[in-house]
Amino acid sequence: MTTAPSLAPGDTIGILGSGQLGRMLAMAAARLGIRCIIYAPESGPACDVAADTIIAAYEDEAALADFAARVRRVTYEFENVPAATAAFLASRLPVHPNPKALAQTQDRATEKTFLNGIGIPTAPFAEVNDVASLTSALKTLGYPAVLKTRRFGYDGKGQVMVKEGMDLAQAFAAVGSVPCVLEGFVPFLREVSVVGARAETGAFAAFDVCENVHENHILARTVVPAAMGEETATKALEMASRIARALDYVGVISVEMFLVGSGEDEHLVVNEIAPRVHNSGHWTLDGAATSQFEQHIRAICGFPLGSTRRHGRVVMQNLIGDDIHSWRELMAERGACLHLYGKHEARPGRKMGHVTRIFPE
Amino acid sequence: MTTAPSLAPGDTIGILGSGQLGRMLAMAAARLGIRCIIYAPESGPACDVAADTIIAAYEDEAALADFAARVRRVTYEFENVPAATAAFLASRLPVHPNPKALAQTQDRATEKTFLNGIGIPTAPFAEVNDVASLTSALKTLGYPAVLKTRRFGYDGKGQVMVKEGMDLAQAFAAVGSVPCVLEGFVPFLREVSVVGARAETGAFAAFDVCENVHENHILARTVVPAAMGEETATKALEMASRIARALDYVGVISVEMFLVGSGEDEHLVVNEIAPRVHNSGHWTLDGAATSQFEQHIRAICGFPLGSTRRHGRVVMQNLIGDDIHSWRELMAERGACLHLYGKHEARPGRKMGHVTRIFPE
Repeated sequence: MTTAPSLAPGDTIGILGSGQLGRMLAMAAARLGIRCIIYAPESGPACDVAADTIIAAYEDEAALADFAARVRRVTYEFENVPAATAAFLASRLPVHPNPKALAQTQDRATEKTFLNGIGIPTAPFAEVNDVASLTSALKTLGYPAVLKTRRFGYDGKGQVMVKEGMDLAQAFAAVGSVPCVLEGFVPFLREVSVVGARAETGAFAAFDVCENVHENHILARTVVPAAMGEETATKALEMASRIARALDYVGVISVEMFLVGSGEDEHLVVNEIAPRVHNSGHWTLDGAATSQFEQHIRAICGFPLGSTRRHGRVVMQNLIGDDIHSWRELMAERGACLHLYGKHEARPGRKMGHVTRIFPE
Repeated sequence: MTTAPSLAPGDTIGILGSGQLGRMLAMAAARLGIRCIIYAPESGPACDVAADTIIAAYEDEAALADFAARVRRVTYEFENVPAATAAFLASRLPVHPNPKALAQTQDRATEKTFLNGIGIPTAPFAEVNDVASLTSALKTLGYPAVLKTRRFGYDGKGQVMVKEGMDLAQAFAAVGSVPCVLEGFVPFLREVSVVGARAETGAFAAFDVCENVHENHILARTVVPAAMGEETATKALEMASRIARALDYVGVISVEMFLVGSGEDEHLVVNEIAPRVHNSGHWTLDGAATSQFEQHIRAICGFPLGSTRRHGRVVMQNLIGDDIHSWRELMAERGACLHLYGKHEARPGRKMGHVTRIFPE
């Protein structure tokens, strides 16, 4: 990768996507004197804190060209940006993370093959394109197993647990009869994640390993540091660094892992990569010297990475759907750091905000 | 004052003024899910992080009416909003702080008279309207004394030190031959300030007393806590609370004071009131549980006030003019919290950003 000249305060960057991750990225950019233009198919929470907004389809090349002409770097807040959009922009200016890294992480089969290729363990898996290949995959991987769409899955959407005796045609239909992977079941103790940043210089800095608790397939709580052996934690950071280097990555990368076994047998299996800031890193806004959002902005602008020092033991709780209605109690709670995303309608499963609590270690 | 119903996340407020104080207010509001519309005669750093901007003169009643119709509270980031503008808006919706408090603090003579009236000491002063009244005031107050315009002074603008033997006509001309006050010289040891917030309920919460060092009449550094006796510090907070109560104030109020004498003789003289967030409170962004900006938003929205707990000994340094050119070193400095205001041109005396460093106590 050729390195473009660093930005300076006063410069403008572009963010694809208008959700809460874009919102927190834009605020972190503003703190460093960087202006943001949001590009998205529809308005969202990020637009309220950005210098400008372009509402257009990801396929609208005239709008994309206008966007590219007005910014010095492009980044994105979610991984489902069409590959053609990323390629179109990357032909005009630096796009971080690079479109190849994006492509590698958009498809579960490609991602797992890439990970195994650099010596990083994943769940055993097989590609599934129809009921016949599902049947044959189950013979190898056994029951239970998890059937996941190769693309566009999030928060448990596009996946189903396949148990013995289940109607396989029904299971395949449940995920939309699209190309899938079947993943062998991993008997994990805990889900953890590493949120780290790689600079244009190749420098890598990660926050401490996060422990994540999901409810209804949605992240409910993150606790830092994760309960795990020191050696395993070091391995987790090393794996994230190896992945970022192999992808020639610039920006924040998030790697979700399963913690399996305990004691001597404790080890990690990578679940998936998110090529962006991550919900499990929201605690860094209040609990670390530099937030994941500022770290991403620093990385993509060619600024020095900030310190990842943690301020204490941290618990981040997502406010999902109706949880938001306790906002007044949370505001009154001493030491609770509340972040609301400015979304009007509290639909079930919708991430409305989060609250972080920091305790002395 | 009648209390209007509290706001809720998702609501919109209006901010008069587009400078860096408005910028930091808008970002604090966004964090709580509150949208901001900036109203100002010209675009500025606040516009880059606000949901919308109205660029119009403070006298443009059609634009003001439009603004008032789109927001649920109005506040301001600087004290020189014309009284008629504040009154026009206050006839339509709650304006915090209230226009009367604004008027009391816009004029140095009115302000000092108000302060003395509630038992708070100021420098001895006399009104000056011409060279004759200046001559007579000097007979009472003695040399040296400080001649200040009654209105619109900031960062040392609109004031001159009057020393023995000086040409008085020239001194009066130097401040623009406008209505002034002459202030008797106060032989202070230190300049300190209290930044506190009063809620609609009457609750008051102040941050610890700040010690301020000026260079060329512009705030250079703030150190917290201020070096002063504990009893005097308590008195400082009590004075700020008394002032806020007397003004029926809602929002953040900042009171600049001179620390005079030492030991048994240590006491405070109020220099001036700023009816807004204050440069000497910028350290709260990184050094306190709640920032002064969030505290102001909480107060004006009818939310509970946040904790003012300090994280350590704090030093805030302003980046003025060319200071900004050290941004890359400051970004690389471990533990330095950098805030840049997104201003393009680094003119001499222009506040471009600030950096906060926190040390264990």
